[in-house]
Amino acid sequence: MRRSKRLVLLSKFLSENPNRIFTLKYFGDKYDAAKSSISEDLNIIKDAFHEAGEGTLETIPGAAGGVRFRIKRPAQAIEKFVLELSSILSDRSRIIPGGYLYMTDVIFSPEYSSKIGEIFAQLFVDEEPTCVLTVETKGIPLALMTARALGVPLVVARRDSRVTEGPSVNISYISGSSRRIQNMALPTRALSEKARVLIVDDFMKGGGTARGMSELVREFRAEVVGVAVLVATAYPEEKLVKNYTSLLVLEKIDAERGEVRLKPVKIPIKKEGV
Amino acid sequence: MRRSKRLVLLSKFLSENPNRIFTLKYFGDKYDAAKSSISEDLNIIKDAFHEAGEGTLETIPGAAGGVRFRIKRPAQAIEKFVLELSSILSDRSRIIPGGYLYMTDVIFSPEYSSKIGEIFAQLFVDEEPTCVLTVETKGIPLALMTARALGVPLVVARRDSRVTEGPSVNISYISGSSRRIQNMALPTRALSEKARVLIVDDFMKGGGTARGMSELVREFRAEVVGVAVLVATAYPEEKLVKNYTSLLVLEKIDAERGEVRLKPVKIPIKKEGV
Repeated sequence: MRRSKRLVLLSKFLSENPNRIFTLKYFGDKYDAAKSSISEDLNIIKDAFHEAGEGTLETIPGAAGGVRFRIKRPAQAIEKFVLELSSILSDRSRIIPGGYLYMTDVIFSPEYSSKIGEIFAQLFVDEEPTCVLTVETKGIPLALMTARALGVPLVVARRDSRVTEGPSVNISYISGSSRRIQNMALPTRALSEKARVLIVDDFMKGGGTARGMSELVREFRAEVVGVAVLVATAYPEEKLVKNYTSLLVLEKIDAERGEVRLKPVKIPIKKEGV
Repeated sequence: MRRSKRLVLLSKFLSENPNRIFTLKYFGDKYDAAKSSISEDLNIIKDAFHEAGEGTLETIPGAAGGVRFRIKRPAQAIEKFVLELSSILSDRSRIIPGGYLYMTDVIFSPEYSSKIGEIFAQLFVDEEPTCVLTVETKGIPLALMTARALGVPLVVARRDSRVTEGPSVNISYISGSSRRIQNMALPTRALSEKARVLIVDDFMKGGGTARGMSELVREFRAEVVGVAVLVATAYPEEKLVKNYTSLLVLEKIDAERGEVRLKPVKIPIKKEGV
């Protein structure tokens, strides 16, 4: 196979399998080429991805080593995207009577959810999550795309335990905003001990749901390595979880006056970015 | 920018944006190259994608024309994947007391859900769906990945109308298997008139849920262009929807004896495939 064709197929493969390690031998067999040729291909791809701000191609030494593509966008590109999101979501037509913000089309869009998932993955990849957890329903697309970008499985807690999923761990928790008792259930086989769990959701008000998920994780003797949400409300300032990252803060929503104010959060990415 | 770098970035971009049309001018501006160079790049990519069975790069003539990457895997590759799925899901440890099959880990896995979504997209792309519809919860990952592969939005019906999503259309329907009355709701702003809707779900027994979704679509004066499910049960043979496509048929599940039998469905793809 000629170099140009290998470059095309390798680039496609790597971009579809982020954060996973592949050996040169694997690619050599796959594309019927010498390891030295693959190595040269990967150098070209590495430079192209790096220069375009797509991410890095890392070489992992050792017996379990190989190459790994990591999505790493420059801070400016992320800021620009979050600003665009902020502007889209600030449209007055999105205000729902009762003071809610209609975000469903954005978080269910494959285009936006994959970009948001890639940002969450980039922010938490160094914590080495082994799975992503959310609770049904609206967090699922963001959580799935985050899991995809991290190359790890997605686990979804349900509001009730389901007969179709076998034995489960169930917890009750107090919703931070409505102060009502809520339930959450996860099949016992869904999460393993010592899992490193990244919690993802679309929206946080009081933080009760995220805290509920944390408690659920603890019941499995697993560990929460981060909490990522798309939008957090400015009030209450004190959330029921200590550490979380949101891309946007909802500072104000007034259905009467038709006002909504969202603020992009300063994303904690080193400025050198790439 | 040198050709090799353009090939890398173009391949990544196209594979991330399937089924969408881009002009040569768009790429020329993006990669700072003459249209003639871009055209040569695209020919190389087209051949590589075609030979590797990844898909086709089509040239759309006319004012709204450009190039479009379509995922088109050869029939054998799809059959092999469905066979692998069948074998994974036939594991006895997946039998849940009550005669259910535990599939959650597979349908929530980014790797499997994206491959299944790509197959659904390939099977229905010629129907030109303008959106993908599912109902919460377990169908969401497959539906999202199908929408991604088609380059169209995802719409998710809820079991109850939500105050946070504004006015909605609500329907009641009879579940085909349990014969119970169920509810389904979709915000009025979620689906437009004349939408061409591909319905996606993980599992079909009686077909009541798919029929409910079809009725919901009709309330919006939109049109159902297809119904795709991962697994359909062999019994009841008569489903409440006439036309549907499933990748697998669940012929038997017996919790007492620890038996489960799944059969891959002959996929209706022309044998020449690519």
